[in-house]
Amino acid sequence: MTAPKIALRPASTDELEAAVRAGGGEPVEDAASADAIVWVNPRDPQGLADLLAASSARWVQLPFAGIEAFIAAGVVDPARTWTCTKGVYGPACAEHALALMLAAARRLHDHIKASTWRSGGFGSPERRLAGTTAVVIGTGGIGSALVPMVRPLGVRVIGVNRSGRPLDGADRTVRVDRLMDVVHEADWVVVAAAATPETRHLVDAGMLAAMRTTAWVVNVARGELVDTEALVTALEAGSIGGAALDVTDPEPLPDGHPLWAMANAIVTPHVANTWDMAVPELVAMVERNVAHFAAGEPLEGLVDPGAGY
Amino acid sequence: MTAPKIALRPASTDELEAAVRAGGGEPVEDAASADAIVWVNPRDPQGLADLLAASSARWVQLPFAGIEAFIAAGVVDPARTWTCTKGVYGPACAEHALALMLAAARRLHDHIKASTWRSGGFGSPERRLAGTTAVVIGTGGIGSALVPMVRPLGVRVIGVNRSGRPLDGADRTVRVDRLMDVVHEADWVVVAAAATPETRHLVDAGMLAAMRTTAWVVNVARGELVDTEALVTALEAGSIGGAALDVTDPEPLPDGHPLWAMANAIVTPHVANTWDMAVPELVAMVERNVAHFAAGEPLEGLVDPGAGY
Repeated sequence: MTAPKIALRPASTDELEAAVRAGGGEPVEDAASADAIVWVNPRDPQGLADLLAASSARWVQLPFAGIEAFIAAGVVDPARTWTCTKGVYGPACAEHALALMLAAARRLHDHIKASTWRSGGFGSPERRLAGTTAVVIGTGGIGSALVPMVRPLGVRVIGVNRSGRPLDGADRTVRVDRLMDVVHEADWVVVAAAATPETRHLVDAGMLAAMRTTAWVVNVARGELVDTEALVTALEAGSIGGAALDVTDPEPLPDGHPLWAMANAIVTPHVANTWDMAVPELVAMVERNVAHFAAGEPLEGLVDPGAGY
Repeated sequence: MTAPKIALRPASTDELEAAVRAGGGEPVEDAASADAIVWVNPRDPQGLADLLAASSARWVQLPFAGIEAFIAAGVVDPARTWTCTKGVYGPACAEHALALMLAAARRLHDHIKASTWRSGGFGSPERRLAGTTAVVIGTGGIGSALVPMVRPLGVRVIGVNRSGRPLDGADRTVRVDRLMDVVHEADWVVVAAAATPETRHLVDAGMLAAMRTTAWVVNVARGELVDTEALVTALEAGSIGGAALDVTDPEPLPDGHPLWAMANAIVTPHVANTWDMAVPELVAMVERNVAHFAAGEPLEGLVDPGAGY
């Protein structure tokens, strides 16, 4: 069997070339004659489209899990096999979601800004995470990694997805069309779904109005899943407990945006899965998928071009 | 069998009286003729001493786990049986320790103070908790509750205690006299031990010097276990990664103390286990211990007056 030719574009690294070789492939420069392309720039769909126009590659590996920009640009041609890193970065993002939940519960956003001791006694606003309920929207890589992290902390999970297929370890799982039936149970609405036309503004004014006044929105997915204007209105009114956002809409969040100054908002600049966290996972996935490709086996992280993720 | 007379002092509540009755005891006012005293004020050892001088109570229940002020005041007379809430508040405190570890790893102390978006790319300082090592000093209620919380996050635990008795779920456990042999392995030095003359300034200049330059001190036990002056020096020099402190020495931390302004310090005002979190646990423990007392069974949370906790 000949080693499949794998083009690493637009740039390669020693680590990625080593991964291709370890998987049984041959790293090549020329995308036109390559059997597959590993595309490592998450922000240049047009560059990939130009490359593909003159390539017969049968498989394209994308470097990120959130590929909506590539879908929107029409690059994801269903005649080829597409894979992305869905699932692979789930644990890193879930860990960040847990950090935000605990920070909110323990009021770290207040304490970190304080410069004076607040005396103890009854009525202190800190809460235990134990005994709370998380409604987790999206049961893919992030959602399924979050469950085993929060269950030992005594958090009950209600999963929400398109199919209603049970999320392992969740108390129960409902279809997204039943989301409004469960949102009032949430202490935490954790947004962990892919960005698609259907999920845009999934967290809207109606859903925010149905939330408990103590509940927090935690978004580690994509900013567009939350209607920012409605969220700011809810936070200003105090009709929900707060919002902890690793992703925003618009992103980057502009200077002077009301979310920066709100006492009940925590913003982190899209660091749930940093480049430094991602690279080892991407390299390992490339090695596994090159090995699968060389052996004619099913690939990991298959994209459904129709579903958009 | 007569119901034992249990005096709830210096004040009682309906919840505590109900717990005494549910445990098979009779709540009484008069401490002199009571069989046992449930003392619910954690800050008045002298008041308890005065009461005991004229009481033949055989058992005294204290309301907090950290009873060093009662030991120091000489109240804990070994002729009676003493219990405290050790263990009972462990999960609440462990949850707070995890919140602080995740906040530090994810740089929430930077992000929460920010009012502008920091662009991504390589070199972002956030870290995964996965793959790190926690040296947990003290394997009682807090330490043993922390292990099952951090293990699912991929954290390796090295337990440290007086006996070397293995901490369940830890990678290994060493005696406190071997602490300096393991501290260089720590990404997190979690202080979770009782305050005794032996543990005072356990984290001192020598230990801080042996820590990795990226490692954090996390203290959810008692401020006196850490030499604050040495800690401030290490933080100023950047010789350790940071410090996350729920307890301080002095406590309350005075206004203008250098720890308030340090970029690599997180201070929370002794809220790992707030009164609101504690009361339900105390009430449940009183019920269990009254039942044990009435039945002549061993009590929970027995204090060793010689050891001081």
